[in-house]
Amino acid sequence: MGVTVGVDIGGTKIAVAVVDEDGLVVAQDRLKTPATDPTLIVDAVAESIQELKRDHAVEAVGVGAAGFVDAARRTVLFAPNIKWVDEPLADRLEALVDLPVVIENDANAAAWGEFRFGAGADVDDMLLVTVGTGIGGGIIHGGRLDRGAFGVAGEIGHLRMVPAGIRCGCGQYGCWEQYASGRALVRETRDRIRAKVDLAQPLAALVDGDVSQITGQMVTEQAQKGDPMAIDLIADVGRWLGEGIASLAAVIDPSLVAIGGGVAKAGDLLLEPARAAFLRSLSAPVFRPQAELRPASLGNDAGMIGAADLARAR
Amino acid sequence: MGVTVGVDIGGTKIAVAVVDEDGLVVAQDRLKTPATDPTLIVDAVAESIQELKRDHAVEAVGVGAAGFVDAARRTVLFAPNIKWVDEPLADRLEALVDLPVVIENDANAAAWGEFRFGAGADVDDMLLVTVGTGIGGGIIHGGRLDRGAFGVAGEIGHLRMVPAGIRCGCGQYGCWEQYASGRALVRETRDRIRAKVDLAQPLAALVDGDVSQITGQMVTEQAQKGDPMAIDLIADVGRWLGEGIASLAAVIDPSLVAIGGGVAKAGDLLLEPARAAFLRSLSAPVFRPQAELRPASLGNDAGMIGAADLARAR
Amino acid sequence: MGVTVGVDIGGTKIAVAVVDEDGLVVAQDRLKTPATDPTLIVDAVAESIQELKRDHAVEAVGVGAAGFVDAARRTVLFAPNIKWVDEPLADRLEALVDLPVVIENDANAAAWGEFRFGAGADVDDMLLVTVGTGIGGGIIHGGRLDRGAFGVAGEIGHLRMVPAGIRCGCGQYGCWEQYASGRALVRETRDRIRAKVDLAQPLAALVDGDVSQITGQMVTEQAQKGDPMAIDLIADVGRWLGEGIASLAAVIDPSLVAIGGGVAKAGDLLLEPARAAFLRSLSAPVFRPQAELRPASLGNDAGMIGAADLARAR
Amino acid sequence: MGVTVGVDIGGTKIAVAVVDEDGLVVAQDRLKTPATDPTLIVDAVAESIQELKRDHAVEAVGVGAAGFVDAARRTVLFAPNIKWVDEPLADRLEALVDLPVVIENDANAAAWGEFRFGAGADVDDMLLVTVGTGIGGGIIHGGRLDRGAFGVAGEIGHLRMVPAGIRCGCGQYGCWEQYASGRALVRETRDRIRAKVDLAQPLAALVDGDVSQITGQMVTEQAQKGDPMAIDLIADVGRWLGEGIASLAAVIDPSLVAIGGGVAKAGDLLLEPARAAFLRSLSAPVFRPQAELRPASLGNDAGMIGAADLARAR
Repeated sequence: MGVTVGVDIGGTKIAVAVVDEDGLVVAQDRLKTPATDPTLIVDAVAESIQELKRDHAVEAVGVGAAGFVDAARRTVLFAPNIKWVDEPLADRLEALVDLPVVIENDANAAAWGEFRFGAGADVDDMLLVTVGTGIGGGIIHGGRLDRGAFGVAGEIGHLRMVPAGIRCGCGQYGCWEQYASGRALVRETRDRIRAKVDLAQPLAALVDGDVSQITGQMVTEQAQKGDPMAIDLIADVGRWLGEGIASLAAVIDPSLVAIGGGVAKAGDLLLEPARAAFLRSLSAPVFRPQAELRPASLGNDAGMIGAADLARAR
Repeated sequence: MGVTVGVDIGGTKIAVAVVDEDGLVVAQDRLKTPATDPTLIVDAVAESIQELKRDHAVEAVGVGAAGFVDAARRTVLFAPNIKWVDEPLADRLEALVDLPVVIENDANAAAWGEFRFGAGADVDDMLLVTVGTGIGGGIIHGGRLDRGAFGVAGEIGHLRMVPAGIRCGCGQYGCWEQYASGRALVRETRDRIRAKVDLAQPLAALVDGDVSQITGQMVTEQAQKGDPMAIDLIADVGRWLGEGIASLAAVIDPSLVAIGGGVAKAGDLLLEPARAAFLRSLSAPVFRPQAELRPASLGNDAGMIGAADLARAR
Repeated sequence: MGVTVGVDIGGTKIAVAVVDEDGLVVAQDRLKTPATDPTLIVDAVAESIQELKRDHAVEAVGVGAAGFVDAARRTVLFAPNIKWVDEPLADRLEALVDLPVVIENDANAAAWGEFRFGAGADVDDMLLVTVGTGIGGGIIHGGRLDRGAFGVAGEIGHLRMVPAGIRCGCGQYGCWEQYASGRALVRETRDRIRAKVDLAQPLAALVDGDVSQITGQMVTEQAQKGDPMAIDLIADVGRWLGEGIASLAAVIDPSLVAIGGGVAKAGDLLLEPARAAFLRSLSAPVFRPQAELRPASLGNDAGMIGAADLARAR
Repeated sequence: MGVTVGVDIGGTKIAVAVVDEDGLVVAQDRLKTPATDPTLIVDAVAESIQELKRDHAVEAVGVGAAGFVDAARRTVLFAPNIKWVDEPLADRLEALVDLPVVIENDANAAAWGEFRFGAGADVDDMLLVTVGTGIGGGIIHGGRLDRGAFGVAGEIGHLRMVPAGIRCGCGQYGCWEQYASGRALVRETRDRIRAKVDLAQPLAALVDGDVSQITGQMVTEQAQKGDPMAIDLIADVGRWLGEGIASLAAVIDPSLVAIGGGVAKAGDLLLEPARAAFLRSLSAPVFRPQAELRPASLGNDAGMIGAADLARAR
């Protein structure tokens, strides 16, 4: 069987690749997300695909997009970053590239990629948790991607962790992604610096006290150098992460939880506290078979590779 | 095709029935759970099945049991009420009744029953929430029962609703079933009576002030007579119910949430506040297609009927 | 004994009055807060006092200011609205008006006013809770204003109600004033309108769907007309209010809790739910003597009158 | 001036002492609490006082009792351990010992003792937090004991830390003493052992796996030997302690918070995490003058010494 194209439309850049049936990237292209104009985005993606088609026998296209995708996998119901509402993305792209197109939520696509070719290649049931600015997720049950009734399953970042908790962009309060994410890491780091906590001095020095310059990556690098406050801040995110995974495990019972996303680059600084909190927070822990928490393995390519494979399996 | 037997092993009684392929109960038997002796329970169930076999061409047996059931559907990993641990129930029962046996968690079996023949007969993706003393649940995705990697998916009553919240029998804190259940209803009613709240006087009078006599059914009946405190207490359970369902909907995206269990007998007194809280608590409510909350329709027979059908579909 | 001047420096306007020893306002002046320039504010206040001195034998000046005031009652440590930091307000004003000056936190001054001449004139121990945009408060113990060791007691709006709760301007999370205030009322109203909740239609219609136009006063007026959503929204604020008061009552044991501030204009729509929640949330309710919740009675003049009296009692 | 007698009636023992005006114990007696028979307790205390009177010119008696004491300091409104309800303790004791008697809540008496002769001798405004099985407290404002309107101020253990949180014996949910106390320490330790957490093995070994034998003292000793799980468990109690103190500091603004009670014997293992959490949880931390957290210094004698001094100052 031939190759397919996988596309991952993120907030700031678009990845396009030709992927073979073993999940290997044969060729690729990376373009900036052209502002937030939906039409420009579709045109740019189509152009990129057309170019790749010249050298590769592409059979289908899979697109991962950050947002709600309908159950038929053809329409983006809502994409907060790109301001798409009820966008018939598959139709529009098919018209331009003359190939069958399937659309999938980006985190779902990434979960599928990890399941087929990455951290979850050896299991049938897994949960992918991508810890980036927010939290994304995808659920595999019995070798199938759980898309839900309306196509919007797996929005695990909006599991409510704290009643009347921190305000979320989704309109609710206390969503998990307000506590176990890069956003939370940055917010808490800024708080420590602003409160002039002694241990936060090294972090403050990195940005000359300008808290707006703090990024999650800075905190991670500082932690990797042994800074106790940075280590503590990442551990705190890990703790919330593990507690949320324990809550989800009671509901969906995965054998594997793969942790991906930018914040996961902190490695065991994040994963060890997450594992400890996960075990401590499990319901009926003695009798419940326990999922393994493992790093995701495909990095930023997971969504693109997963989308390409979903196009093949359409 | 012929009939199968469905068995529902509850904490205090066992229901056994011959069920046909349309989910209709052809014959049935109800026995008390013989204490908590696992052997006696198996013997009693086997005897009942043998008797039913005389008049019916039973092809297989499905058993719903309150507890963790392994992924192979043969062993009860842990049943809190009956004190079963790693009980090879299918093996033991097969040896006694000479029929193929499948075991399933009771709430999963009930979810399957409702999906096949009850409230969810018209959908492909549903969540059953049974609100009894605690909360049980079962998830149907794409027409399949989600059993999880280890067979213990759907333990939705242990979704954590409140960090550092009310202690749960499962060893954790803040589990959903501590807030949205018959146990919560009774506990809160007793609190109001003990605190000598004026509006609680009619409820107190029902039990001559002996709060230990309060039952959930009493509160429901009192609410149905228009007692404002009872109505308020049930509405509060409904509110927690709706909030938890909203949190789950973000994760599993059902098109239908069926509400069953003893407390659901309160009808709209429970369901209306649950629906309002559900809608109020949805993440990104404007763009998210919304599940319907509907009463379950098979009552106490759901588990038995579902187990019988799972035996057929084994 | 003669009269004193009371000054209340709020975020948008300044009230200045000559007050007699019975707390009666003999003459007054109201000026806009001149931007946020501290110097201009002091000058404007001084000018107003000079004018009032011409006709009245003013003996001293008391100033209530929104912010932290030092234990010596002379320096504003921090005023968030006016951007004062370590402002020697008493010194500067004394130099300009040639009268003794005492500074007090505005809510403390209001508490003193209510205690001496208003809702608390008949008690020795009271708590004033002013529910405006945020929550202010003042504590009277044994006939004395509790100023605390550093002068910053009574910041009850920053009692933590929800761990990891809604972000507060004070740098913390879950402060009471994020739940039981005008800000909370407006935020929740906007949420309901945005989520297109049916019952919120009348409120949405008031502002043609432009949620930014919603004010607390609008919601109150709508509730007074019988709008069920508005009534519910105010009751929710009342519930949080009562729960926080119950928590405080365990600590400071007042006999009276007076409720003032703009949101309190909702009257029993706010107070009845607050009382019910207060009683429901009391620790050891049967054995604990219970404080009365009562509306404050001096309205916006409480701070000015209280400040004037504190100047007399200095 | 002469000496007075201080009495501390605890749950299991009664301390009686002759105390001089410098807070020094001149003579003392310790008796077991005779069951929970209120009459026997009064008789035993009276007998002990009579004996001490033979050798000392006792001028008055102060009694600290665990429970609610009325504003007149004569009647125990409610003592949960001894089952006193509206017990006219001062009258009864005066009749038996022929000396003036004042009654005070035991934690208030201890706060007074620490304020006059212990950790708070150098300040005017302090909060005593006694961390024992539960949390007790006493507040000193401007050199006076804050007794509240009804005599029941300072019940800081019932500050609500977690809405819908862990059930408290007081009838409420989420009280501070469910998280920052010896009870919490023991409960969490037992949880870790039951969940078979690896790091809990040394603690489990201490009691041969019988979690009911775990005591707070054991965990403290184990932590002092360097056991990481025990250290972590105490730090967790410290964290909750510091968070609650920060919340209280916003309300009562002490310059000193003295930490006493059995759990405080863990020293810096408890205090350092408490201080860190306190600083991290302060509202407007940069501008708020900060209280010092310091160990209490009178140990178990604080209540007795404080009660004796309150009798003198009556």
